[in-house]
Amino acid sequence: MTEHTVKSYDEELAHLTNIIARMGGMAEAQFAAAVQALTRRDSDLAARVVAGDARVDELEQEIQSFTVRLLALRQPVASDLRHIVAALKISSELERVADYAANVAKRTLVLNQLPAVKPVSAVQHLARIVQEILKDILDAYIERDVEKAIRVWNRDEEVDDMYTGLFRELITYMMEDPRTITACTHLMFMAKNIERIGDHATNIAETLHFLVVGSPLQGARPKGNTVEAE
Amino acid sequence: MTEHTVKSYDEELAHLTNIIARMGGMAEAQFAAAVQALTRRDSDLAARVVAGDARVDELEQEIQSFTVRLLALRQPVASDLRHIVAALKISSELERVADYAANVAKRTLVLNQLPAVKPVSAVQHLARIVQEILKDILDAYIERDVEKAIRVWNRDEEVDDMYTGLFRELITYMMEDPRTITACTHLMFMAKNIERIGDHATNIAETLHFLVVGSPLQGARPKGNTVEAE
Repeated sequence: MTEHTVKSYDEELAHLTNIIARMGGMAEAQFAAAVQALTRRDSDLAARVVAGDARVDELEQEIQSFTVRLLALRQPVASDLRHIVAALKISSELERVADYAANVAKRTLVLNQLPAVKPVSAVQHLARIVQEILKDILDAYIERDVEKAIRVWNRDEEVDDMYTGLFRELITYMMEDPRTITACTHLMFMAKNIERIGDHATNIAETLHFLVVGSPLQGARPKGNTVEAE
Repeated sequence: MTEHTVKSYDEELAHLTNIIARMGGMAEAQFAAAVQALTRRDSDLAARVVAGDARVDELEQEIQSFTVRLLALRQPVASDLRHIVAALKISSELERVADYAANVAKRTLVLNQLPAVKPVSAVQHLARIVQEILKDILDAYIERDVEKAIRVWNRDEEVDDMYTGLFRELITYMMEDPRTITACTHLMFMAKNIERIGDHATNIAETLHFLVVGSPLQGARPKGNTVEAE
């Protein structure tokens, strides 16, 4: 972080948006690489994703120190305070997105030692939808686009429903062929991790609404009929 | 929160410790009730745990507003700033502990509609260990006891190992009797949720160390041989 080149308060706030965007890009790339490693059964790539998580964690630490310094030195109020609090929250959401991506990669390493099973493709399909949602919310953050954030927020139910369908598919698959139980339970956790990435995108949508509009997103949070909100 | 009775800065900081302690007590109670609901196949109690999660969320919101106000009005530095940042972090850890407890309760509601399976007792055993750890870290927070925090931190590996053993036991059980697959996958996610509560206790131990000593806990984070960090 080039703190010495950052002079004015406005520049500091703009800098904050930039590092959040950068962290978003990193989380997005980690998730994309994790999905690719799963698709190609590529253990090298999966191992790189696992190792790469440390960089995202470092960036979160940097953002935390920077925001604490801003809070202490600038005593922000109103929309500036919202900006800083939002940055703190979004950086912790993105850290968790990257964490889940790393978990998907860790399980890919295990899966690659087992015979391939068919339901992998359903997990990939879920991942594609969640990748779209993550991309949209990062775009919305950069553009401060509340309408786009609300559209992301409304897609949470779609992801939950897809996850529930996938959960049932995996159960059926395991019952039909108990030899696939180990692989399918790993896929189940991977699907859960991916569904959780979608939840974090929804959280970012809520924070973005609060940041731009100054009030919480109205209405009950969209929830599918999945029993596990985890 | 009785803000109007809180006058001095020192009193505000003490108040912050108190509401964190209260939130800790709530999270602990939610987790204990979730485990009891699982043990007794008690759907009423499970439903109460699910409903009770909203109160923990509210308390987290209250703590967030209070800390943001403190940051803005008091411009804290050094140990006071650490105190406030630690409160923010610990409240978000506790919110997630309660979240996982609610998830265990949600899955109990599903499990209670299926025939009982034997591995429930192994999940209860894991839960007892994690309940101990959660209690210890909350005691350590109130007493600002760094030694106790380090002991909690060192138990993370024990929990991870126990979880890994349980994971294998469940896989074996499902393979031997595929009719138990649905129940066992729910138990697997419950075990994961409980193991995650242990991770959050470990995170609180790290934050407490930082709060009291002013530096991060030295050494690599203890990690068992589980492939799934999440």
